[in-house]
Amino acid sequence: MTVTGKKSISETPDLFSRLREACADEWRVYTDHDFVRGLADGTLPEACFRHYLGQDFLFLIHFARAYALAAYKGDNLGDIRQAAASLSAILDVEMDLHVKFCSRWGLDEDDMAALPEAEETMAYTRYVLEKGLQGDLLDLHVALAPCILGYAEIGRTLAESPATRLEGNPYAPWIDMYASDQYQAVAEDERATIERLMARRGSPGRLPVLTETFRQATRLEAALWDMGMHAVDRS
Amino acid sequence: MTVTGKKSISETPDLFSRLREACADEWRVYTDHDFVRGLADGTLPEACFRHYLGQDFLFLIHFARAYALAAYKGDNLGDIRQAAASLSAILDVEMDLHVKFCSRWGLDEDDMAALPEAEETMAYTRYVLEKGLQGDLLDLHVALAPCILGYAEIGRTLAESPATRLEGNPYAPWIDMYASDQYQAVAEDERATIERLMARRGSPGRLPVLTETFRQATRLEAALWDMGMHAVDRS
Amino acid sequence: MTVTGKKSISETPDLFSRLREACADEWRVYTDHDFVRGLADGTLPEACFRHYLGQDFLFLIHFARAYALAAYKGDNLGDIRQAAASLSAILDVEMDLHVKFCSRWGLDEDDMAALPEAEETMAYTRYVLEKGLQGDLLDLHVALAPCILGYAEIGRTLAESPATRLEGNPYAPWIDMYASDQYQAVAEDERATIERLMARRGSPGRLPVLTETFRQATRLEAALWDMGMHAVDRS
Amino acid sequence: MTVTGKKSISETPDLFSRLREACADEWRVYTDHDFVRGLADGTLPEACFRHYLGQDFLFLIHFARAYALAAYKGDNLGDIRQAAASLSAILDVEMDLHVKFCSRWGLDEDDMAALPEAEETMAYTRYVLEKGLQGDLLDLHVALAPCILGYAEIGRTLAESPATRLEGNPYAPWIDMYASDQYQAVAEDERATIERLMARRGSPGRLPVLTETFRQATRLEAALWDMGMHAVDRS
Repeated sequence: MTVTGKKSISETPDLFSRLREACADEWRVYTDHDFVRGLADGTLPEACFRHYLGQDFLFLIHFARAYALAAYKGDNLGDIRQAAASLSAILDVEMDLHVKFCSRWGLDEDDMAALPEAEETMAYTRYVLEKGLQGDLLDLHVALAPCILGYAEIGRTLAESPATRLEGNPYAPWIDMYASDQYQAVAEDERATIERLMARRGSPGRLPVLTETFRQATRLEAALWDMGMHAVDRS
Repeated sequence: MTVTGKKSISETPDLFSRLREACADEWRVYTDHDFVRGLADGTLPEACFRHYLGQDFLFLIHFARAYALAAYKGDNLGDIRQAAASLSAILDVEMDLHVKFCSRWGLDEDDMAALPEAEETMAYTRYVLEKGLQGDLLDLHVALAPCILGYAEIGRTLAESPATRLEGNPYAPWIDMYASDQYQAVAEDERATIERLMARRGSPGRLPVLTETFRQATRLEAALWDMGMHAVDRS
Repeated sequence: MTVTGKKSISETPDLFSRLREACADEWRVYTDHDFVRGLADGTLPEACFRHYLGQDFLFLIHFARAYALAAYKGDNLGDIRQAAASLSAILDVEMDLHVKFCSRWGLDEDDMAALPEAEETMAYTRYVLEKGLQGDLLDLHVALAPCILGYAEIGRTLAESPATRLEGNPYAPWIDMYASDQYQAVAEDERATIERLMARRGSPGRLPVLTETFRQATRLEAALWDMGMHAVDRS
Repeated sequence: MTVTGKKSISETPDLFSRLREACADEWRVYTDHDFVRGLADGTLPEACFRHYLGQDFLFLIHFARAYALAAYKGDNLGDIRQAAASLSAILDVEMDLHVKFCSRWGLDEDDMAALPEAEETMAYTRYVLEKGLQGDLLDLHVALAPCILGYAEIGRTLAESPATRLEGNPYAPWIDMYASDQYQAVAEDERATIERLMARRGSPGRLPVLTETFRQATRLEAALWDMGMHAVDRS
């Protein structure tokens, strides 16, 4: 690729790149959080991880609802089918994987389902759903982006970083899960969906609102790591 | 059944029985419509049936959206899973069956997808979706009931009626489809869902609004048969 | 204005002009409908007008709901205030005017509120509301446009047309109402809102969906005139 | 009141009393919070109050949206008119009062509108809105109840408590505002609305979900006081 070509690309970057750059500070706080560092080197207190895992199960329920909402909001049969496939994947595959993963940490599905939902879990999930109801399908997917694309970036970055300790790290399976080709492919699909929706329903005029949505959603994702860290104080 | 038993049942009938009885006139107009009679004896003009079939394909798209909405509106994981399973069944099974059925009538999926949506198709589908958004899951399912339970009743009644001509009737496969054990089971599930939601979220105080919803939805279903009948005038 | 200037304007027309041009056939059917012609020359049977008026009262209730929805969906305080002002105007001013207008035709508010809602009234109103919930504020306002801007165009056109008979025409007050400076100003505000939302949230990529919305909404408005015409057959 | 009377009342208490009793722990944490105690004796650090006030302005915007949503979700014209009147009161009266109140603390409207929304502000407001969209008008009002009825109880309790210091207490005007007859009347209206909706749309079967909604909303209200307290750590 020529320098000129590179420049012209950087002049019209894709939506996700723009959003991440516009919210660089919030994105760094989220993706380079102490919780993430503690996963990378295995120093995260187990209580923090277990608290996070339980809430992540409750999170998944509302995450499924977000894709149901996306299916409702589709402009055409293609949109509906795609969102319904994601909904099925969450309910029929991811939730089982999550439950199996959690059982290795001594967390039982029924116990998790009975947990009180943390304020931080409510905050991010309801923010995403309400944004999707207030706005359109693009607003909804931009609110979801920090979750899916952020976890993919965190997984990939940790897996590639020399600072990450995988041997003897109890959190290595978590890193593997999000660094896996399977999860990376899910994130690539989500990213493609966002760009396709930007082409179809987006415009420069929408960038301020979309950026604000991305910024707020990123902050609420970081607050979920904070929640995990505070589990030690609470216990 | 003893008289006492009958009486005690009629004192607390299930919701669907109450709604059908409260809207008996509208229900009869819908289930005993000339379009239905024309299906039963095979005299329905082909143009009417083909027009109806094409619109029914567009209907199915919004019907899928209604179950996506139901999944979003679920109070718990069980609700979400059930609605998501219905959504998958519509998109992955029923739509294919419908397309195959239509191909026997010379209707191609792409052609159907490109049809202008009839006013009557918009009327019922958007009524259901909007009612579901304005109200709760019970309001949504009551708006859906005339469709699913009405078709099951029509299919069963036609299949059992001596007046129905099945031999040489080009509409016999349509009658078979809705009289089939498979479709009857779908309708039984829907009916059970409505009763379960009535037990969980319903009350006598809600009956006036639920009855009005059922009445309006039934009238809009009958209008879809009218639409089919008028296809002859238009052609 | 020079020809060049004119041309450059026609190259980038405002959204409403584009939509009206893209749906020219449907727009003509709606704005030049027999019902409208019957209002213009006073030949519309009174039964048609009275049926229409009663339904228009029920229409107004859902029209109010549409502005409540717009207030909910606002991106900022300005959006919310503007929609809330429209909502107040409908509930506190327009509805009273409508009731007074109807009383001159012997229609009482309570009687109108108890009317069964016509299929056509349900169709347009629920279409608008559901489109607004599925999409964003721009989708909602485009679905509302045929109503507000269409009535303004009809009122203005009838008032200016030499073919319109105002003397001795029982429908002259109706024409005056929609040709009035007050109503024309309401329509201008709505038009400005649509253009402002197009600048903020619109894009060329949204035109196909917005055009389809405008086309469907225009057809459903025309169906309301049809409903009025059919009142004679029913009575 | 006789013992019999008392007993019969406690057998069928109103919905709000039931919810408050079922969530007694959470309600106490919220209404007897250190932030509230600091308001009562004037010891709350000014930074805490100012941080809270700024966020409360952002809160009001979404509170207005909640009443717009209530107007959309109304089952009849009475519901719509009542919610629209609340929406107008918030936008045309309460917001001005709030701005005037804040100006005495050196907070300017434009500055407040430009504040980053705190996680806690997003959490409660979006929870209410999303609950209202997922459920019906009763679900929405139960999610709003801890805010309106809680503030009325706090205002009244503080005004009546001998432990409260009003002289020389910079927060006395805040206490006066929520203890005022005007605000108490607003809260009474809200309480009557909840009971009326419970009679019309409620049932014993809905109590578990309604209680969970009330509990979560109460916790998210308490989190807003926490947010205020933490302002000292942040500054």
